[in-house]
Amino acid sequence: MLSDLDSQMRRKRIQAIVVIGDTTLANPDLTYVAGGALPRGGVYFKRVGERPLLVVSNLDVGNARKLGRVRRINTYTDWGFEKLARKYGRQSALPHLIAAVLRTERTKGRVGIYGRNDLAFGINLADQLKKLGISATGESSPTVLEAARETKEHFETNELRRVSRKTSRIVRAAMDALRNMNRKRGRIFIKNKLATVASVKRMISHMLAEEGLTAPEGTIFAIGARSADPHNAGDPADEIREKRLIVFDIFPQAESGYWSDVTRTFVLGRADEKSRRLFETVCEAQAGSLDFLRAGVTGEVAMSRACDIIERRGYRTVRDVFKGTATSVTSGFTHSLGHGVGLTIGERPYLSFLSRDRLKAGQVVTVEPGVYVPGFGGVRIEDTVVITPRGIDNLVNVPKEFELT
Amino acid sequence: MLSDLDSQMRRKRIQAIVVIGDTTLANPDLTYVAGGALPRGGVYFKRVGERPLLVVSNLDVGNARKLGRVRRINTYTDWGFEKLARKYGRQSALPHLIAAVLRTERTKGRVGIYGRNDLAFGINLADQLKKLGISATGESSPTVLEAARETKEHFETNELRRVSRKTSRIVRAAMDALRNMNRKRGRIFIKNKLATVASVKRMISHMLAEEGLTAPEGTIFAIGARSADPHNAGDPADEIREKRLIVFDIFPQAESGYWSDVTRTFVLGRADEKSRRLFETVCEAQAGSLDFLRAGVTGEVAMSRACDIIERRGYRTVRDVFKGTATSVTSGFTHSLGHGVGLTIGERPYLSFLSRDRLKAGQVVTVEPGVYVPGFGGVRIEDTVVITPRGIDNLVNVPKEFELT
Repeated sequence: MLSDLDSQMRRKRIQAIVVIGDTTLANPDLTYVAGGALPRGGVYFKRVGERPLLVVSNLDVGNARKLGRVRRINTYTDWGFEKLARKYGRQSALPHLIAAVLRTERTKGRVGIYGRNDLAFGINLADQLKKLGISATGESSPTVLEAARETKEHFETNELRRVSRKTSRIVRAAMDALRNMNRKRGRIFIKNKLATVASVKRMISHMLAEEGLTAPEGTIFAIGARSADPHNAGDPADEIREKRLIVFDIFPQAESGYWSDVTRTFVLGRADEKSRRLFETVCEAQAGSLDFLRAGVTGEVAMSRACDIIERRGYRTVRDVFKGTATSVTSGFTHSLGHGVGLTIGERPYLSFLSRDRLKAGQVVTVEPGVYVPGFGGVRIEDTVVITPRGIDNLVNVPKEFELT
Repeated sequence: MLSDLDSQMRRKRIQAIVVIGDTTLANPDLTYVAGGALPRGGVYFKRVGERPLLVVSNLDVGNARKLGRVRRINTYTDWGFEKLARKYGRQSALPHLIAAVLRTERTKGRVGIYGRNDLAFGINLADQLKKLGISATGESSPTVLEAARETKEHFETNELRRVSRKTSRIVRAAMDALRNMNRKRGRIFIKNKLATVASVKRMISHMLAEEGLTAPEGTIFAIGARSADPHNAGDPADEIREKRLIVFDIFPQAESGYWSDVTRTFVLGRADEKSRRLFETVCEAQAGSLDFLRAGVTGEVAMSRACDIIERRGYRTVRDVFKGTATSVTSGFTHSLGHGVGLTIGERPYLSFLSRDRLKAGQVVTVEPGVYVPGFGGVRIEDTVVITPRGIDNLVNVPKEFELT
């Protein structure tokens, strides 16, 4: 939560933070501290224990006020940007402006620099600030902002719920449409044309359009052996066929910047025994994880429980890597159990063997075990859920149906 | 062009570059050097005058080979990432890996660090590399990669043409749909419901879906007084009405990562004299700029020519700011004439008073003069064009029609 920022800054001995960007939606930290999207971005300043200041274009003062998260709003002109550009050159105006604000705010200690941008720009900016007497610093992950963003505020959970509701509608509608497509000898037809991954993805894009969502990172619709690679987005030319595993993983973003993440795996028609065993294993692991998760549990223990269930069914898991008995695991449960969702599609907290922190109420995570058999296919089932004191609140409402008949 | 990279590195005395990222589409430099999207990102190394090396996840070796731009492909495991993580901690494994590669490649001079990421991460990475004896450096803009990306290769121009062709189809179809909507006493109806910016944007989203494009940065559809702010995306609740200026600015991205940028301004029905004069002025400035642009011309001179035309018609331009006779210009031609388009929607070269470099054949830029009257509305007309030795090759094919009757 934003209110965690001061304690995070104290813990890391950072006296002030500066968050920079010329875009907002692709810049989660700036969207977060500004309270939403700003057409021309801005620079956010906050000293530990003090109220923040947002510097924006004079055209964006109204927009920044409407967002309402920062009360003190100044313009670049207020801080003499144009004069600084004439005096020091356009490239050096920003570091001079930042230094001027920090000096006026009497900042003396370490100043953390944030925002998503070109690293060459950031490293150069830090060097320029140091020359101006500012103790600009980077930070190892989790940064103070990553840590603050980890636990959601009420308005954020509401927005994440809204995006997941829309996403759930899309997944249900897509599964229904696939179920109802014409089939002839194992082949699937959309309006008398062979259904391909490309044509199904086009259908999904229309559903996204209807819900007012976008999928800037794409959508996974992987059929058959391709589904054995959890990151394979699916080959557009692949035909949709009966009896083959289909991993459908959709992760859309709303205009607010918040995301949702849902995966279902199914076959059209009847599945073979091997596929069914994969599905049952993953279903059991997912249900077990959803039952087990609550505030106070660590990601590591949740991951371990999911591995228990999957190993009991005879599949390998990444535990072998963490025990040191294997350098990599290419079949079975090859990834971690989940990750946070918010203004990014992958953030803290993570549910993996490296996650020793206890989960807190108000965190939003995916729960997505998967089992993969190279050359054959994979199954993954994923919901996005809120951690509560006693369990979880599942934001996703899509049946875990395996055979679409 | 990628082949410019060596000369750019020599000019800036950078001995090696490192491009980093865990995503590719939102990371134009990595997409560029890797030759396309990689599901799990990677780290790209290149010493001046030498062949590059791409380090990726062992799951992405096949994907990286298929992209074909880098021949030398290694995995994180090849460079002992897991061992480094155990020895130095997960946070320090990456700097140690980068240092190991650079040492093996006998890099001694300055090493530029690139890729879009959290600045806190980048500044911290540079500090860690310095402690490991690597002379890691940031760079002021234009970085060696920005400079290389500035002039497009043949395959890039082809892809930009394809995206602009799709975008043109969308703009034409949207204008036709708007023209043919039912009208009653100045109001517009879609299926018996009052047409709003929200419903028109939904229609446009479906058109994007049909073309296989996304608009991760949104779409501008600003009506009436809102169109006077060039960045105003339009209020979803605004009703579409006859006789009001509508600025429709669309900037979609294809799966390849390449963008297009097209703006048309029109009214439904008949326009008043004031709107018409704005339109004619901008039309004249745009046509004049398209006629004037060619390899060898500077952005500054092109901008100046566009201002001449607009000032002759009695409107102010940003020239007043550059002459120093005003600190800001809020009406008239308030922005610059254009910007480069490629793997980002705003990159070099820029067509502004600060652009003293001569344009080169193969650069792709927008040409988008606009004139704005606060409280009333604005007009902007924009095409995306390739600079050629003798002029331009317009990638956009949409009539500049003002009154949709």
